[in-house]
Amino acid sequence: MTDPLPQGATIGILGGGQLGRMLSVAAARLGFRTHIFEPGANPPAGDVAHAVTTARYEDETALQAFAASVDVITYEFENIPTQALDLLEAHRPIRPGREALRISQDRLTEKTFLRDLGLQTAPFADITDLASLEAAIAEIGTPAILKTRRFGYDGKGQARLQAPADAEMALADMAGAPAILEGFVDFSHEVSIIAARGLDGQVACFDPGENVHESGILRTTTVPAQLTSAQKTDAVLLAANILNRLDYVGVMGVELFVTPQGLIVNEIAPRVHNSGHWTQNGCTVDQFEQHIRAVAGWPLGDGQRYADVVMENLIGDDMDRVPDLARERDVALHLYGKSEVKQGRKMGHVNRITRAT
Amino acid sequence: MTDPLPQGATIGILGGGQLGRMLSVAAARLGFRTHIFEPGANPPAGDVAHAVTTARYEDETALQAFAASVDVITYEFENIPTQALDLLEAHRPIRPGREALRISQDRLTEKTFLRDLGLQTAPFADITDLASLEAAIAEIGTPAILKTRRFGYDGKGQARLQAPADAEMALADMAGAPAILEGFVDFSHEVSIIAARGLDGQVACFDPGENVHESGILRTTTVPAQLTSAQKTDAVLLAANILNRLDYVGVMGVELFVTPQGLIVNEIAPRVHNSGHWTQNGCTVDQFEQHIRAVAGWPLGDGQRYADVVMENLIGDDMDRVPDLARERDVALHLYGKSEVKQGRKMGHVNRITRAT
Repeated sequence: MTDPLPQGATIGILGGGQLGRMLSVAAARLGFRTHIFEPGANPPAGDVAHAVTTARYEDETALQAFAASVDVITYEFENIPTQALDLLEAHRPIRPGREALRISQDRLTEKTFLRDLGLQTAPFADITDLASLEAAIAEIGTPAILKTRRFGYDGKGQARLQAPADAEMALADMAGAPAILEGFVDFSHEVSIIAARGLDGQVACFDPGENVHESGILRTTTVPAQLTSAQKTDAVLLAANILNRLDYVGVMGVELFVTPQGLIVNEIAPRVHNSGHWTQNGCTVDQFEQHIRAVAGWPLGDGQRYADVVMENLIGDDMDRVPDLARERDVALHLYGKSEVKQGRKMGHVNRITRAT
Repeated sequence: MTDPLPQGATIGILGGGQLGRMLSVAAARLGFRTHIFEPGANPPAGDVAHAVTTARYEDETALQAFAASVDVITYEFENIPTQALDLLEAHRPIRPGREALRISQDRLTEKTFLRDLGLQTAPFADITDLASLEAAIAEIGTPAILKTRRFGYDGKGQARLQAPADAEMALADMAGAPAILEGFVDFSHEVSIIAARGLDGQVACFDPGENVHESGILRTTTVPAQLTSAQKTDAVLLAANILNRLDYVGVMGVELFVTPQGLIVNEIAPRVHNSGHWTQNGCTVDQFEQHIRAVAGWPLGDGQRYADVVMENLIGDDMDRVPDLARERDVALHLYGKSEVKQGRKMGHVNRITRAT
């Protein structure tokens, strides 16, 4: 299928969280239906989807029925079991494609891919046992951070080493999982660039946003970011480099550390990204519609920004602030309809328009 | 129920067309679920709703189950059978309330209400038979337009009288339905004001838009409209007058003729309105979210406009233009996912941002 997806076609989305929810709304805006596949009950995306399948990724019958009911498949998170992808791909195109998933599912593969592209990354080493960890510490130094190669998210599966003596304890934290040691980067701030590539190879980037994290979770993204014109150009070029090499179709989030030695790629996410939520109130075509356009084989929006925006995540008890936020003139609320408030859980976000441009 | 509706509450929406669809998306953005009640199969709103009931307004069992499943009820069109409303209202609050429906369901009642408020309307007369029609023509003159008192929409149920001799033929067009004769108004252009009133009585208005119709169907709405500052103030005051008198809760569309003798009220619609679609790309809180906020007992957005916008309806074959429209930088697409393209059918709309302000 390379023709543009017609009105009324169905886009299958793996994962029913807030990203799937906002993708679903964007798909509807373009006249598409969505079908959500999600193991958890009552997924946030289910409230705005045409159909929902509640099943595990090991349920082949459910996967097959899901694939048969949709025209193309995309996803809101990268850690989808390989066997499920194999089965789905036999029936329908998966966009973005498998290579992007393979790379982003494994921190070591990802870092190696980026380095081989000529991009800067933090120093890193493959860790298989205590000996390889000690050798890596000798080379990279401390402080450093030990991470599982797979299934990391929002700061989970990570152990910080303040000194070489922490090696054994940090390795125990990995519980035997393959790991990667990453050296610290001396950066002034973190930005991310949300880039998209269409089925025809067209690339479009949104303006980079500047990210602030708290406890390993994104707190705010501010556009415009503090970047020189040359740094912005670098960000666009390196994102295009990554997308083109992967023959990528869809939106990708690329996190970057800003240093005197240039931009260092922290990580890539082959999907819409929390740091791109500001586009909902800053661009005519936001990151969710951009992703749907790419996946559907439609022309991309150009990423033009028409406002300065601060996106702030509403995490856990931040929901208590909603009544006050609802009274602020330039605040756009985006709540996810999650039934239970939990500490550290992303419940919604606001986009505060600070200036029309 | 006068407390603000909490996260996860369900808003029932009568009618599953494009207005219900866009209301449903706005409700989700605030963390609410929606349940659509619609007699027709596969309603556009169903693709973005938590639940859909497909049943007739005469189906009391279905109405009761619907009412039991929701926290508050609103609607996307005003011609809901009275018996259905009676049944629903016994279970759950209906917002906007019954008085607004009673008035807007009947052109004669509506015109009389507006005149009694001290507002200007076109000259009108109650028509029950040929004698009353001839008497009305003698007073109002021709050209004039004969309309059924109830169930008019997009120019249906109307007959134009060019001369007194047309009386009998026009009356035959009414097929025995109660009718109203309206005189023509000599106006320079038509505008509409989208106004909202909260549960606490707070009133907020969006900037008036200027409407152009073709074949009785809205073609474009442009903001800002050609209005003096005094005319804008008049529009706000008369809208607030109407909303307050009705103890209204929700968004209302008020269509106005601009004349040298001031603003003349054409008609009111107790719901979100096609001429308010521009707010989706011109305001932080659009008319759909504004309506949901009111219905949910939340604070209203203030209606502040941050862009000049031209909204254009995509009617019937206009859908052929979508591939080109998708390539235009400042065009936001809003398609309704209707399966069948028909002449005169509203299939979607675009908001073209002509200037950021």
